[in-house]
Amino acid sequence: MKKQAVILLSGGLDSATVAATAISQGYNLYALSFRYGQKHQEELNAVKKIIKFFNQNSEPDTPNIIEHNIIDLDPSIFLNSSLVNDINVPKNRNLSKNDIPNTYVPARNIIFLSYATAYAESRNICNIFIGANEVDYSGYPDCRPKFLSSFEDMINIGTKLGQEQKISVIAPLLHLTKAEIIKKGLELKLDYSITHSCYDPIDGYSCGQCDSCRLRLKGFKENNITDPIKYLNIKQA
Amino acid sequence: MKKQAVILLSGGLDSATVAATAISQGYNLYALSFRYGQKHQEELNAVKKIIKFFNQNSEPDTPNIIEHNIIDLDPSIFLNSSLVNDINVPKNRNLSKNDIPNTYVPARNIIFLSYATAYAESRNICNIFIGANEVDYSGYPDCRPKFLSSFEDMINIGTKLGQEQKISVIAPLLHLTKAEIIKKGLELKLDYSITHSCYDPIDGYSCGQCDSCRLRLKGFKENNITDPIKYLNIKQA
Repeated sequence: MKKQAVILLSGGLDSATVAATAISQGYNLYALSFRYGQKHQEELNAVKKIIKFFNQNSEPDTPNIIEHNIIDLDPSIFLNSSLVNDINVPKNRNLSKNDIPNTYVPARNIIFLSYATAYAESRNICNIFIGANEVDYSGYPDCRPKFLSSFEDMINIGTKLGQEQKISVIAPLLHLTKAEIIKKGLELKLDYSITHSCYDPIDGYSCGQCDSCRLRLKGFKENNITDPIKYLNIKQA
Repeated sequence: MKKQAVILLSGGLDSATVAATAISQGYNLYALSFRYGQKHQEELNAVKKIIKFFNQNSEPDTPNIIEHNIIDLDPSIFLNSSLVNDINVPKNRNLSKNDIPNTYVPARNIIFLSYATAYAESRNICNIFIGANEVDYSGYPDCRPKFLSSFEDMINIGTKLGQEQKISVIAPLLHLTKAEIIKKGLELKLDYSITHSCYDPIDGYSCGQCDSCRLRLKGFKENNITDPIKYLNIKQA
């Protein structure tokens, strides 16, 4: 039997690259996505394309992604986030500043990973993949190595499964630049045209000005490749 | 302004006692309860009575419990638990055994506390109360002091709020016996007739044989008091 893992799949470039990496390492995946009150549905539409992409060449009996669940979270618990609430997403922000921008969603990765833990423990699975990255990111506290290792410690203490086996939270992209992530995905033949990163898309076009678009565009540029998605008013060199 | 805290309120004896304790210490509370696929609705019915009880004598403008939310969790993530799935709840189990019984729900407290963290961070609240207890309990890994301190560490690393202020996970009952918990609640004039503890109630009667009933009955007996709730085929001395 192949190795099994739970993966958090957002529809973005990072988690799609993690999925490609895990599959290339011989994992079968149980994917979890979340509907948490995001102002747009683009990422969940992208998730569905990503699942289809990874399963298109696998055997029907043993798909690369065995199961995919979209879990509904009650959005009323999240306040003060421009991804959920009626607040403008910052554009062309100074990325070198240490501020945590308003795109931060309170305890979002903590909740996502907690669900992944329950899901994994229920199925006796000891590996949880996440696309967290601390290089080209927006300074979110829940994307840092010390958060992930602290979360891993906590679930190994607080679950029944953790008393019996070691549960691992695996973040293969943690120390890579966006350019390195994209390079890795391209080597694994990942089709980035089906991924979505923009925080503030309009009619299927990415804005090109939010942190997420800018980090993505920079990553493609450093690979001397045109990003295959559509941007509003951005002409890639 | 009074101190504010988020509290996990299950409808059980323990969390009701924690609420009474926190209110006596001058906290206004934001209560969270969860519908996670429990096989019976008794605890959520009890929660509503508990909220009413704590707010009956407070000023309408400043209720002791400011807000109460029942959050829906997708029950399909939880497998192998007799509280959620079609598995019998163990009766008259050897409580001194070190086994974790099948009433354990995978990562339940981890998910509950993660929601409490998001909820607290969204409202800039730094205190989270939980009724965890490691003396008269069923051996759940997520009720132990080392789990709670590990969870507290994790959220202080992984949230924006934790970078600015210390978030505290407060478990006032952690080291008390069930008898001591009940004594404390009675001193605070808590009405235990409105609380619910049984894992397997029938028509409003508690079974008297599950771990939760037996620990509760023992606690009342040690206080030389009759438990005010109704039991099936149990005559209290």
